[in-house]
Amino acid sequence: MRHILLRIVFLFFITAPIIAQQHPITYNTSQDYELIRKSLPNNPLLKESFDNIKNSVDEWIGKDVDVPIPEGLEGGYNYERHKGNYRLMFNSSLLYQITGESKYAELTKTLFFKYAKLIPTLKNHPQSSGTVCPGRIFYQALNDANWLVFTGLAFDGIYSYLTPQERKIIADGAFKPEIEFFTNDLEPWFSWIHNHALWSTAAVGIVGIATDNKAYVDMALYGKHKDGKSGYLANIDGLLSPDGYYTEGPYYTRYAILPLYFFANALQHYNPALKVFNRRNNVLQKTLTNALQQTNLRGEFYSFNDAVKEKNVTCYEIVEALDIAWNVFGVDTSLLPIARMQKRVTLSSGGAGISDFLNKRKVSNDYYAYKPIEFKDGAKGDEGGISVLRSGKGDSLVSLIYKYSAHGLSHGHYDKLNINLYDGKNEILTDYGAARFVNIEQKLGGKYLPETESYSKQTISHNTVVVDEKSNFNGKEEVSQKHHSNLLLSNINNEFISKSGVEVVSAFDDNAYGGVRMQRTLYMLNLPTHNKPLIVDVFNTLSNNQHQYDLPFHYIGTLMKTNFKYYSQLNNQATFGNANGYQHLWKEAEANIIGHPITQFSFLNENTFYTISSLTDDSTSLFFTRIGANDPNLNLRREPALIIRKQGRNQSFVNVVELHGKYDANAEITLDAYSSVKNIELLQNDARYTVVNILYDNKPLIVIQRNSNFDNYAINTIEVKGKTYSFKGNYTVLFDGKILVE
Amino acid sequence: MRHILLRIVFLFFITAPIIAQQHPITYNTSQDYELIRKSLPNNPLLKESFDNIKNSVDEWIGKDVDVPIPEGLEGGYNYERHKGNYRLMFNSSLLYQITGESKYAELTKTLFFKYAKLIPTLKNHPQSSGTVCPGRIFYQALNDANWLVFTGLAFDGIYSYLTPQERKIIADGAFKPEIEFFTNDLEPWFSWIHNHALWSTAAVGIVGIATDNKAYVDMALYGKHKDGKSGYLANIDGLLSPDGYYTEGPYYTRYAILPLYFFANALQHYNPALKVFNRRNNVLQKTLTNALQQTNLRGEFYSFNDAVKEKNVTCYEIVEALDIAWNVFGVDTSLLPIARMQKRVTLSSGGAGISDFLNKRKVSNDYYAYKPIEFKDGAKGDEGGISVLRSGKGDSLVSLIYKYSAHGLSHGHYDKLNINLYDGKNEILTDYGAARFVNIEQKLGGKYLPETESYSKQTISHNTVVVDEKSNFNGKEEVSQKHHSNLLLSNINNEFISKSGVEVVSAFDDNAYGGVRMQRTLYMLNLPTHNKPLIVDVFNTLSNNQHQYDLPFHYIGTLMKTNFKYYSQLNNQATFGNANGYQHLWKEAEANIIGHPITQFSFLNENTFYTISSLTDDSTSLFFTRIGANDPNLNLRREPALIIRKQGRNQSFVNVVELHGKYDANAEITLDAYSSVKNIELLQNDARYTVVNILYDNKPLIVIQRNSNFDNYAINTIEVKGKTYSFKGNYTVLFDGKILVE
Repeated sequence: MRHILLRIVFLFFITAPIIAQQHPITYNTSQDYELIRKSLPNNPLLKESFDNIKNSVDEWIGKDVDVPIPEGLEGGYNYERHKGNYRLMFNSSLLYQITGESKYAELTKTLFFKYAKLIPTLKNHPQSSGTVCPGRIFYQALNDANWLVFTGLAFDGIYSYLTPQERKIIADGAFKPEIEFFTNDLEPWFSWIHNHALWSTAAVGIVGIATDNKAYVDMALYGKHKDGKSGYLANIDGLLSPDGYYTEGPYYTRYAILPLYFFANALQHYNPALKVFNRRNNVLQKTLTNALQQTNLRGEFYSFNDAVKEKNVTCYEIVEALDIAWNVFGVDTSLLPIARMQKRVTLSSGGAGISDFLNKRKVSNDYYAYKPIEFKDGAKGDEGGISVLRSGKGDSLVSLIYKYSAHGLSHGHYDKLNINLYDGKNEILTDYGAARFVNIEQKLGGKYLPETESYSKQTISHNTVVVDEKSNFNGKEEVSQKHHSNLLLSNINNEFISKSGVEVVSAFDDNAYGGVRMQRTLYMLNLPTHNKPLIVDVFNTLSNNQHQYDLPFHYIGTLMKTNFKYYSQLNNQATFGNANGYQHLWKEAEANIIGHPITQFSFLNENTFYTISSLTDDSTSLFFTRIGANDPNLNLRREPALIIRKQGRNQSFVNVVELHGKYDANAEITLDAYSSVKNIELLQNDARYTVVNILYDNKPLIVIQRNSNFDNYAINTIEVKGKTYSFKGNYTVLFDGKILVE
Repeated sequence: MRHILLRIVFLFFITAPIIAQQHPITYNTSQDYELIRKSLPNNPLLKESFDNIKNSVDEWIGKDVDVPIPEGLEGGYNYERHKGNYRLMFNSSLLYQITGESKYAELTKTLFFKYAKLIPTLKNHPQSSGTVCPGRIFYQALNDANWLVFTGLAFDGIYSYLTPQERKIIADGAFKPEIEFFTNDLEPWFSWIHNHALWSTAAVGIVGIATDNKAYVDMALYGKHKDGKSGYLANIDGLLSPDGYYTEGPYYTRYAILPLYFFANALQHYNPALKVFNRRNNVLQKTLTNALQQTNLRGEFYSFNDAVKEKNVTCYEIVEALDIAWNVFGVDTSLLPIARMQKRVTLSSGGAGISDFLNKRKVSNDYYAYKPIEFKDGAKGDEGGISVLRSGKGDSLVSLIYKYSAHGLSHGHYDKLNINLYDGKNEILTDYGAARFVNIEQKLGGKYLPETESYSKQTISHNTVVVDEKSNFNGKEEVSQKHHSNLLLSNINNEFISKSGVEVVSAFDDNAYGGVRMQRTLYMLNLPTHNKPLIVDVFNTLSNNQHQYDLPFHYIGTLMKTNFKYYSQLNNQATFGNANGYQHLWKEAEANIIGHPITQFSFLNENTFYTISSLTDDSTSLFFTRIGANDPNLNLRREPALIIRKQGRNQSFVNVVELHGKYDANAEITLDAYSSVKNIELLQNDARYTVVNILYDNKPLIVIQRNSNFDNYAINTIEVKGKTYSFKGNYTVLFDGKILVE
């Protein structure tokens, strides 16, 4: 309701007459360029960034830059040339504004004229069939939108260099056919609430501002029919949660943030009264913060959903967003560790500001200030979310990601209640991400490979329970998109990161599997006697019917030791199953663990040992699998997993994940290579309470949680095995008889 | 002959009476300690190294350090405690000498007394059965020798602190039983020519010098019977080639260099007339240089033979050797990039010198000065060798290792004519090294795993031809040890590294397979039009009988593209063979390539593409394999290979290995992702000449080599397909009609 009211106010503003447009205005204003010119001599990083851009443009000056007939996919010549061209046109326009040298404007203009000739002749791209939405310059319309965003900025940059006739030739030849294509032929696509629509609306809007075409701007802001049901603002309101979480996850936040920030930045100059950066309590600022918080110590975005693992905060999109944020929201020194990693700034006021700051202030070599953090999903913030439990500082940061969010649109995975674990710079319990080699033509033109659909989206490729070898929602996106998991309770404490105590997050899902409730509660414990956190993972499944429950741990590392005997496939191996991703796993080994109250599995990743201790029962069997079956083009990484299989109606997986010891092969030093867990007992597990007793370092570690009627002030008194435990609230953890302070 | 004469001269020297011994003398002299004390305040690196050692010792001061009953393997508590103790005793003795504080001498003395009690009670170690040679404190005698080396140095360091009675208690209790065990019980082992004997003789010798026991020193130098047939000097003469190559390869050079340098250093103080450092034209200096040259850009030793890949030049052994070399051989600035990587120095004159140098001089961030280099194997330098063809500088260094050496004692592999390729920091065509987790108790006590014998030593695990699925010499070490391959010709040119031209090495082997001659000629070509070298690999097999020839390329990377159709195993996979290492390979896919004149296979490693283009014939089949079958304890890394199989009597593998393009997933940049090889023709291949025509960038690249009667001055005129080629010497390479300048 509030949004609708706001929208009416904004409509009022933008219908007010706007004063005849100054250019440049979309990316930088004249004042920005003045500041850049003044800053360049004294700011090494700005100068270096400028020089790099200048060198990249200068090598094309005087050359006849090719504008080929559209054809081929990512990584191929034509695709890469067109991509190169829009960046070249944009960069050259920046150099024109900074240096005043006409050769830069001329380069951009010449390319525009070529495109103004080419574009009106284009039909759909020859490789566009089967894509989400066909493009003309590129095989998908999304990339045409990328082209328009950058060339819109470029046009604005050389506006003053062009005669009115030249402007008309370009606007009519290069822009109009594309914009009509978007808003007429592709109207449903243009009207989506989706990252594609952020790009398409930003494209139309930026071109509108650049070419003084208010009708374009209005369509961009409020949708084709200007009713506010679609368009850029509806996307801001519909795609982002109130605390800035973007439903597709961090990899696509990175992608969406560029049109979000580019168009907001242009609008800030064009119509500051719109206050896009302040919309929904600065939700754009929160989106950037959240993207940064959802990275590992290498700056790589967490790889859940359709992520490509190499993508990190030094990418162009985040450099732009960071520098715009610095300018718009003011000095924020917490961004400097990221800026330092980026080793470049944009040619903007924000870029000059950051460069100046890094130059004058000694910035420590700290990492970004990662903290325990939680995001709600959904436009209203009521569609589950993501928690990141964290402990330790600097190189010792441990991050446990717990996902109980909504599906995440077309790039979402069937991964309800999934976890991932990072220790320092290393991924320990992994999410496969997407099966995709972005921008590599040989690998299906850089598109998502079929194994994304058949393996990496499927539930079995994640670290969460699979019921009866089927994926959540039977792998049906339209169903999954309607549901989300729910948070039960959480205590994510920023103080925790360096103190002893308990972080806890509990969530449940009733929809992913009809008739099965799943509830997973994760504890990250900082014990006073240990310098690495201990993770306790209680995963209960509740059903009236008999099921098979599989819980995989996809680990990165080398098996060191098990406390059970396993039988590995020697001369032949077969798949672990037939469908829903199982067909992509080789069954490397299986174990018969009857008689073991707990199983233990240790592996080594670089310098640290990890042990997963698991409570077993007579229904339990264990498997070691490896990705790679049914992979005709050898696309998949050959990664291993331990899969715990249990049978039953109500079942319970209790796993303790230890990070322990130290290994240095070079110095031949090995410390604490063995687990400290001696036993796990499930003392009680019912609708009211779960009570787990872990024998850790030969001391009892008791975890008690309420399972219903949550109440932070409830007084609990519970008797288990002749002992009485009293605690306030929803859970307690006792180590060696003492309550762990939160 | 010369050596025998020298030995007589030395015997004369050492039988001359030696002046009453000064202590300390084994590791440092009093003058060295004076220099260290003077240097400490002004040398940050020396100070930091000192502080680290001091901190590691100080945490034990006042504690009752455990000397447990020997038991268990590497990585286990008892093993690690004894290892920790000898380092602690040594370090504490250094601190005593530097600081004069008696607590340090006292710590060492107290431990000595415990050992003097324990050692006389010891029988063979409980886990010693089945080892090469049983130990007492440790499971193998080799580690007892490690203990003696360090405690010998430690004893010398606190000599002046001990009363004569105390010295006797230690000498009789801690040293004598061990030395008698070595020289009596283990006499054959003590008399080996082997890295073990370097350790055992250095141990006896250093203890001899430390305890004023000349008889020990003489046994150490000249063998139990003092006849010079065994002992330290015989090992220097028998293990190292004239140019300092150590026959076990660089990983074990690293291990052997510590007793080599430690004892030589002690002897330099004790009896400088022996001139051990100058023996055989400074062969010890050459050994260090060669160990450093046989590393990749990460400083890791090349992994041929039984290497553990993590071991690199920052390890303790190389720090000691480097710092001793700096002191003995004088300032050598080429060592500074290594010293900088090590980030520490020893507490010695050499360490102080390097620290001073690094402090006062701005040392550039260059890598070690890697160059094209060649080592001869064998004590006389007549047992084949190793060539490292190199091109490019800094991060762009490309290194191709070609191995045509002798077997390499008990750690040698059956890898005649093997190659490995590194590009920049990355391993591209890989050698598995050893299947071993050094120092990890869970993995068979850190010992070599059975898969070293059954897989990684076998010929199929290397990048060289396997005949009829059998390993070289049928995998018989005693036979392999008798033979070596031979160099035919080589042109390894230091100028080449940055210029256009040709490096070439050709070698052959007649012994590895009865009745089959193998000749492999490798060309590294720097073409004027390309910034990465091109590798041409001509592997001829000659036999009177029909054979199956397999040539694997064990690559590290992800398959990108092939020009042939392959069929991957979908639901089941089986081993590639039954024995000789084949049983450890899964057959992932096979191809039928009939009709392809050449096959092409591209893969991606990090940021670079690699393509192997292969000449095929109708007998050729191709396989993609992956390591991991018959691996009951999941010990092996799951690495892939492309295996080219041909049938015939005389056969020829012509492969062109291209390094090309650039990939940046983060920036989404892809350049030159495709091969430039269009065709390969074998125009002639007989006893006289091989002529290969490669269509590269649509230009002919002609490689012509003589196959017999090598003569650098021969004038060759050869007509092929109506064209006449004339050249002087043994080979020529023409690109686009022009001879590539060497």
